[in-house]
Amino acid sequence: MRVDLALIGFGNVARRFVRLLDEQRHRLADDHALDYRIVGIATRRHGTTHQPDGLDAALAASHVEAGGRLDEIAAPRATDAFEVIAALATSTAPLRVVVETTTLDIENGRPAIDHVDAALASGCHVVTANKGPAAFAYGRLHATAEAAGLSFLFEGAVMDGVPIFNLVRETMPTAAVQRFRGIVNSTTNHILTALEDGEAFAPALARMQALGIAEADPSLDVDGWDAAAKAAALANVFMDAGITPHDVVREGLGPGTAERAREAKARGQRLRLIASGARGQRPSVALTELAPGDLLAGLSGQANALILTTDILDDIAICQLGGDLCHTAYALLSDLVTVRRRAGASG
Amino acid sequence: MRVDLALIGFGNVARRFVRLLDEQRHRLADDHALDYRIVGIATRRHGTTHQPDGLDAALAASHVEAGGRLDEIAAPRATDAFEVIAALATSTAPLRVVVETTTLDIENGRPAIDHVDAALASGCHVVTANKGPAAFAYGRLHATAEAAGLSFLFEGAVMDGVPIFNLVRETMPTAAVQRFRGIVNSTTNHILTALEDGEAFAPALARMQALGIAEADPSLDVDGWDAAAKAAALANVFMDAGITPHDVVREGLGPGTAERAREAKARGQRLRLIASGARGQRPSVALTELAPGDLLAGLSGQANALILTTDILDDIAICQLGGDLCHTAYALLSDLVTVRRRAGASG
Repeated sequence: MRVDLALIGFGNVARRFVRLLDEQRHRLADDHALDYRIVGIATRRHGTTHQPDGLDAALAASHVEAGGRLDEIAAPRATDAFEVIAALATSTAPLRVVVETTTLDIENGRPAIDHVDAALASGCHVVTANKGPAAFAYGRLHATAEAAGLSFLFEGAVMDGVPIFNLVRETMPTAAVQRFRGIVNSTTNHILTALEDGEAFAPALARMQALGIAEADPSLDVDGWDAAAKAAALANVFMDAGITPHDVVREGLGPGTAERAREAKARGQRLRLIASGARGQRPSVALTELAPGDLLAGLSGQANALILTTDILDDIAICQLGGDLCHTAYALLSDLVTVRRRAGASG
Repeated sequence: MRVDLALIGFGNVARRFVRLLDEQRHRLADDHALDYRIVGIATRRHGTTHQPDGLDAALAASHVEAGGRLDEIAAPRATDAFEVIAALATSTAPLRVVVETTTLDIENGRPAIDHVDAALASGCHVVTANKGPAAFAYGRLHATAEAAGLSFLFEGAVMDGVPIFNLVRETMPTAAVQRFRGIVNSTTNHILTALEDGEAFAPALARMQALGIAEADPSLDVDGWDAAAKAAALANVFMDAGITPHDVVREGLGPGTAERAREAKARGQRLRLIASGARGQRPSVALTELAPGDLLAGLSGQANALILTTDILDDIAICQLGGDLCHTAYALLSDLVTVRRRAGASG
């Protein structure tokens, strides 16, 4: 079955995604009867292009990385994200998917939410690695997608490529999540691990920036906003909370954090930034001292983990023991396969 | 869509399963359009029954628990497992599912494998909590099921209700598992945790038997056979290994284990029974000293965890932080929903 894709945002994650698609082209075709074409790319700073017969996205990625603009590759038939989405909507492919990877705006989740709205209104499925849509508007967007018979998926929004939303939706039928508790921000976990060992804050943050793991604006990590957006998304999806990241009780790393982390470690404890939530309560992101037997206390460096408590199973945890951009790109691929699976055997 | 079920084996897990089904009846109907009836139960020691119009399995469970026989509830129309499967095959329900929960036979996986064969030959799907079929004959049974358009599912065979096989199949598309490493036997992990704290072997084992978590024959746990069967199933499913538990390099708990566990803990290490495998190598089950930073070293008591390394993602781990019979029953329910999902929207 042919799937036409438009990419809204073409940063590190999206460029890794198009290369991963190329690498997995044969498995996607053989295992999932998924034959994709990329027909449009919209960026804020590197131009925009739409080619209804498909374009070489890996070439476009290299061109952008070399400082070029997309409109230099071919004459653009669309000049912004909304025009690219409108153009995708005219495709005759049985599945049309908008791949949204713009950066998180922590004020209100826009324009990512507008991109999702435009896609759904045009009959296009949406897969996104942006936390904004699920963190600010999950209930409304999910209902809109359902009513239109479309998918709105965002596996990459929390713990990158490690399945969280898919885990619950696809493998835990009839179970309801009652509580969650986890380490969901790699940058702050790496910094806390460094601080407790007596390192300074700045070089630890710089390492995460050099790896492309810290947010473009690192205060989103350090002040707990990234974790708060993830906590809001988890609460919205698993508990119908209907909240935004601004409703999350939030704490970040501050001037006194290094001393607290060192003192905790000296006592055999670990200071970690824990995101947690429970049905009917406001989620929180808080620096928390963990006892050594706690699974989350054993996570060092960039590792992430989420513990889910459901009404049927006891606590189960899923952990990401490494972390790089490929994970987020893989989450987009995984969501794309879900869109394809939902379309059934036809085509 | 109506689903008729026959239960082969009616021990603790199967009796918990029928009660869980009753508890989840409304969610199964509302969320999955799954309307089940139990039409047959076969046991070795408590009689056999088949009632084509459905029977009250919760009542049957209570009757058996009070020492009664199934053939006292209603005149049996089938006298053994194979007759019950043959009778299920005559049902006009659009989905017919054999729920296999007999105990593991570590010599050759029979008669569980024969039950799976009989079910598939009769056009019935199979869900099983028995490790034998996947550990001894996965490749052949999977191919038989595929050719017949039927499901052969066994989520409960490893880590009870925590999704392992579903995790990879449903949420990790195009990824190939290269290695696995984990703690997959609750009884030996509980005993090792007790031994390292200076407790004796016998009372620790007795606690696991009292909870119904140790195998009926506890030597299957203690000698590493249960873990070996799980390692064989993982290698067969994820790596097309085509092996049996007898091909697994196996170590169990022995007379010297207590001292090793205490000495390891005194040095800050942990002695754990680790099941591991890699593509192209024989899997193993071995007592292994773990450094404190190892995720598996932090698992005490009955906790289980499995770390998967795939070609796309780095290591990811999934952990079961508690453990009881309900988990295995939930795995059967989860597999039943998978059978229903695969049947699509019709009905």
